Amino acid sequence: MSGIWGRNIKLSIFGESHGVAIGVTIHDLPAGFRLDMDEIEREMARRAPGGEFSTTRKEADKVEIVSGIFEGKTTGAPLTGIIYNTNTRSKDYQPDIPRPSHSDYGWWVKTEGNNDYRGGGHSSGRITAPLVFAGAIAKQILAKKGIFVGSHILAIKDIYDLAFGTQITECMLDDLTHCSFPVLDNRVRESMQNEIISARKEGDSVGGKIQCAVVGMPAGVGSPFFHSLESELSSMLFSIPAVKAVSFGNAEDMSKTYGSIANDAWCITEGKISTKTNNNGGILGGISTGMPIVFDVTIKPTPSIYKEQDSVSLSKSEECKLQIEGRHDPCILVRALPVVEAAAAIVMLDAIE
Amino acid sequence: MSGIWGRNIKLSIFGESHGVAIGVTIHDLPAGFRLDMDEIEREMARRAPGGEFSTTRKEADKVEIVSGIFEGKTTGAPLTGIIYNTNTRSKDYQPDIPRPSHSDYGWWVKTEGNNDYRGGGHSSGRITAPLVFAGAIAKQILAKKGIFVGSHILAIKDIYDLAFGTQITECMLDDLTHCSFPVLDNRVRESMQNEIISARKEGDSVGGKIQCAVVGMPAGVGSPFFHSLESELSSMLFSIPAVKAVSFGNAEDMSKTYGSIANDAWCITEGKISTKTNNNGGILGGISTGMPIVFDVTIKPTPSIYKEQDSVSLSKSEECKLQIEGRHDPCILVRALPVVEAAAAIVMLDAIE
Amino acid sequence: MSGIWGRNIKLSIFGESHGVAIGVTIHDLPAGFRLDMDEIEREMARRAPGGEFSTTRKEADKVEIVSGIFEGKTTGAPLTGIIYNTNTRSKDYQPDIPRPSHSDYGWWVKTEGNNDYRGGGHSSGRITAPLVFAGAIAKQILAKKGIFVGSHILAIKDIYDLAFGTQITECMLDDLTHCSFPVLDNRVRESMQNEIISARKEGDSVGGKIQCAVVGMPAGVGSPFFHSLESELSSMLFSIPAVKAVSFGNAEDMSKTYGSIANDAWCITEGKISTKTNNNGGILGGISTGMPIVFDVTIKPTPSIYKEQDSVSLSKSEECKLQIEGRHDPCILVRALPVVEAAAAIVMLDAIE
Amino acid sequence: MSGIWGRNIKLSIFGESHGVAIGVTIHDLPAGFRLDMDEIEREMARRAPGGEFSTTRKEADKVEIVSGIFEGKTTGAPLTGIIYNTNTRSKDYQPDIPRPSHSDYGWWVKTEGNNDYRGGGHSSGRITAPLVFAGAIAKQILAKKGIFVGSHILAIKDIYDLAFGTQITECMLDDLTHCSFPVLDNRVRESMQNEIISARKEGDSVGGKIQCAVVGMPAGVGSPFFHSLESELSSMLFSIPAVKAVSFGNAEDMSKTYGSIANDAWCITEGKISTKTNNNGGILGGISTGMPIVFDVTIKPTPSIYKEQDSVSLSKSEECKLQIEGRHDPCILVRALPVVEAAAAIVMLDAIE
Repeated sequence: MSGIWGRNIKLSIFGESHGVAIGVTIHDLPAGFRLDMDEIEREMARRAPGGEFSTTRKEADKVEIVSGIFEGKTTGAPLTGIIYNTNTRSKDYQPDIPRPSHSDYGWWVKTEGNNDYRGGGHSSGRITAPLVFAGAIAKQILAKKGIFVGSHILAIKDIYDLAFGTQITECMLDDLTHCSFPVLDNRVRESMQNEIISARKEGDSVGGKIQCAVVGMPAGVGSPFFHSLESELSSMLFSIPAVKAVSFGNAEDMSKTYGSIANDAWCITEGKISTKTNNNGGILGGISTGMPIVFDVTIKPTPSIYKEQDSVSLSKSEECKLQIEGRHDPCILVRALPVVEAAAAIVMLDAIE
Repeated sequence: MSGIWGRNIKLSIFGESHGVAIGVTIHDLPAGFRLDMDEIEREMARRAPGGEFSTTRKEADKVEIVSGIFEGKTTGAPLTGIIYNTNTRSKDYQPDIPRPSHSDYGWWVKTEGNNDYRGGGHSSGRITAPLVFAGAIAKQILAKKGIFVGSHILAIKDIYDLAFGTQITECMLDDLTHCSFPVLDNRVRESMQNEIISARKEGDSVGGKIQCAVVGMPAGVGSPFFHSLESELSSMLFSIPAVKAVSFGNAEDMSKTYGSIANDAWCITEGKISTKTNNNGGILGGISTGMPIVFDVTIKPTPSIYKEQDSVSLSKSEECKLQIEGRHDPCILVRALPVVEAAAAIVMLDAIE
Repeated sequence: MSGIWGRNIKLSIFGESHGVAIGVTIHDLPAGFRLDMDEIEREMARRAPGGEFSTTRKEADKVEIVSGIFEGKTTGAPLTGIIYNTNTRSKDYQPDIPRPSHSDYGWWVKTEGNNDYRGGGHSSGRITAPLVFAGAIAKQILAKKGIFVGSHILAIKDIYDLAFGTQITECMLDDLTHCSFPVLDNRVRESMQNEIISARKEGDSVGGKIQCAVVGMPAGVGSPFFHSLESELSSMLFSIPAVKAVSFGNAEDMSKTYGSIANDAWCITEGKISTKTNNNGGILGGISTGMPIVFDVTIKPTPSIYKEQDSVSLSKSEECKLQIEGRHDPCILVRALPVVEAAAAIVMLDAIE
Repeated sequence: MSGIWGRNIKLSIFGESHGVAIGVTIHDLPAGFRLDMDEIEREMARRAPGGEFSTTRKEADKVEIVSGIFEGKTTGAPLTGIIYNTNTRSKDYQPDIPRPSHSDYGWWVKTEGNNDYRGGGHSSGRITAPLVFAGAIAKQILAKKGIFVGSHILAIKDIYDLAFGTQITECMLDDLTHCSFPVLDNRVRESMQNEIISARKEGDSVGGKIQCAVVGMPAGVGSPFFHSLESELSSMLFSIPAVKAVSFGNAEDMSKTYGSIANDAWCITEGKISTKTNNNGGILGGISTGMPIVFDVTIKPTPSIYKEQDSVSLSKSEECKLQIEGRHDPCILVRALPVVEAAAAIVMLDAIE
């Protein structure tokens, strides 16, 4: 059940949606790195609840760093960031009827009924806030090495944005992280937003896809067994609630064609070895090629909806109806963007440290 | 670069395509388990090269167990299986021109030119033979606990088999593992095979998808951060060469619809809590629900093709043509089935031990 | 540098002597265990500064549990305990002159001058407070399984207490943990205390030895390579500042005699297989024998003394004198007892979970 | 039970005394290092059985490297060395009567009687042969970085050699590794040897101590919690059968004196910061100081002796006599020297990579 991840940079995460606090300890950060607290706050704000397309639960998500920095710089000792929970309405939750497509039932079995069921407890999407904090630090350290991460909404329901092409720049990624509803093709934004607003009105939710890219990763990072860059990325990404698929490069297209079409031919561009296409998303045999690392994350509709649903009573072992209360996101994608980027940043930093 | 995986059952893998031997040490297996060597051989044979749809390189892939068993049973001490390489034609490989969509270039950068380039070295698909060996042992131990793993070819290029439904039985999975070209819908088999034969004739290759299921996993296994069952499965699956996407349940469909449609309602069937649908593939919040675990693996076309390709000379830093020699699979999917199953079995055993 | 330890029960520790807070996250605790907060406070008080034989720095060392418990019981999710630092006098420290026999210089080199030098930063003995907290929880869980830990002062300077014999009972160990200056032979207590008081008067410090025992550990726990019970215990014990040697059973005596004398003969006592002697301290080949686990920990004199010492100026690269200020322990042994016991309890819990 | 060790350089060990083969896989070695096979053989010969002071079992202990090297150099891929067992006399062992001070009984309980009892199985001292192999490689890589390891017999029974002083040179350590019975004070050699020969004649065995040193380790390597250099060294050293205590620097002396005497004052020698004394054995707060790393290992008498001993019948649960057959070492210290050095080399390499 361990909430520990990483080999060179290690995360230890903790907290529950309605507990006292949530947070993360980051082990083995390089010493002497001056943290930009404004940038950390900006990333936290991107994930924080409260926007038009999200839950109405408001949390400042102010991180207090209680160890590992001295005079504004990392010391190399474990760095712990804590966020105290402030705006909890636990009465909205009850333990006896598991919410469909949530982990309530699994936890109940796993802990023999001793789980903190309020808001999903330790499984809550709220636990991604510490991830974003860790990712914000990772991003800053990566940026000094010329490595940048960014993402856009690839799909809301069946409305698709354009995909990243072979040319992805730091500037393009930075713009995306400053956009409140980032898409590559501005013409699809409004339709996507209308889809979300419409789902909210119906008391329903919608799914979609996020596409994320990392530029500046040098070639030669990673390994085949068992810590391919794809393994590491997917292992972290599947920790994000609602993520159900992870796909690298043009996986889907490649599976439907011939090697002669799918293969990324090597070439020399500006004196540097690269590939003409990037169907493999910058990773071959688990090792980076020097091309942009590109992956898609498939996200299911938020399972918390206001429509009445079928469930069971755990105590009575009989079927019953469930009407979910509380404050929920009609579409988690907008808030998930910085989480996906944080995951990518942490994995990349771990890989190159 | 570490070839070590696992928390309760640990694998340590080694070997190169054209080195002396390949193998794996499995740590922390339960003691006193009598191994069925015939079953292990059957699984090895499923992956071994030589069939109509695969490479013409022949390898007996006979595993010698050199430690960890005594009088036919596991002792709990590290169990090592070794396969000596016998049929190598290293002259088919040369180090200077990286093969497109292979890891050659990444290794070359990573090791500053000290990689064993012959047949991909440690990145070779050949290294999945020890995985199948470990998986065959894991399967036997799981079977005693009522847990079974099986898979079928979901797609060859754009020809699709039926997907698993909600009802998956041990018997159905067992049948699939005994079929040389397993599909659920027998009507698609021939078209799929023709697609492969046609690619072989063209000196080309094709991709596709494998769908795998695990039945009998109890509810309550797994965790949200960072070792969700999805994280563990994907981390192992992305170690298999050519795997480019991993998807759980009906991820794609869910992303394109509403929560009210995607959610798996809880119900009581034969006195047992289960779900009416299984869109989430048996895993919620990283924890098993007791429903069949179902996932799809997207596999790219084998990058080794006989058509001339564009590449570069590493020594001259200039573009050139590459004509691949050697013996290669026009489609890796048939041989990848037992590898995907082995990955699933190892992950499940690790999760419940 | 990672502050993470454990395989089944994992600790992630953080904090600096003069930072905002210190603490620990414990991963993978069993769910449903009701914590006795009074017992935790009692253990914290045993280690807390302020007694006659310790520093005059006063810290309440009140632990706030911010995650992992619900309605008084563990949930199985990561449990984090935080202690905010309150009584810090950082002006007593300066970065330029490393204190002899402290880690100041090593940290300075390691972090290129970015370490938090105040009170030793993350290397401070203060960081053992979270260890005692984790140990207090481990002790409670072990007690339910009939496993008990206790220790006594084996030596202060060259004044020796009696050693544990073959018969060690739960009751005996419990009494020791309730004694403010625990020795087996009451006649040596006063001499030991006088030695400490005399060192304090001189502005000096003294070393000594702690002997710790664990009773109730079943036979068959542990392994030879590389996680022998001795390996695990020593790895944790050498994290405690000032510990310089770890010895199991009658190691010293055994090294000086013959096998025919040192060997622990097997016998049957009350129908149970045990050994007539326990020279090996309850561990053979890294595996528990069912006999009490007994080990000695050698502790150097506290390096912080008030006598003027020789040191160097890091900035000037020249030799100089150092006069240490601050509040320091003339002998750390009394406060180290609960730390050593905590280490033992954590290791035992990790080994049997 | 896992036979895996390390963070940067990882070992995975396997094998039993009387099984097919023993060996080790070393993960994450640097690529491009040319191995000196003669040096490896020399180290293996130092540990191999057959000398005047050891068992009469003869094993060539020829290591076959089956992966991870190409054209004589490491590739960075897992490097596996295998030693096939050749000279086994399993009939000397029987499972029902555990040998005193061996791990037989612990294994029997742990595996519910499924352990390979022949010669101690996986707990056998024979499994240190792969450790010496891994250590021989580590030593070569360290030597290129100016780091050298050596050891001498500090004590046989109660006959003591001189201890290392503050001045330890590469040359001194190298000489020791080329000596068949290395002591610092040549006058004690003969008495020590007579003690061993006398024990052999009596069918008995003797214990003793080994002192090991590492020179050339830079300052600033290691960490306080939980991976101090002392933790890492002791965790590896306690994997060596018969090791019962590990002590750093002048631990025993320090525990018996005052801080003002024990403290290692900083000074400047030839423009470099060092300490006047080295009571702490080159490690402070878990971090290297740049001084020689010095530690003592206490080794119990070989438990296999030819005198009749008391034991029990596991099947009958009654006391009985045991007469050990087989070929055994009257004193393991001479053969343990390269094992202790190997352990130190592996730990140092892991720490600096």
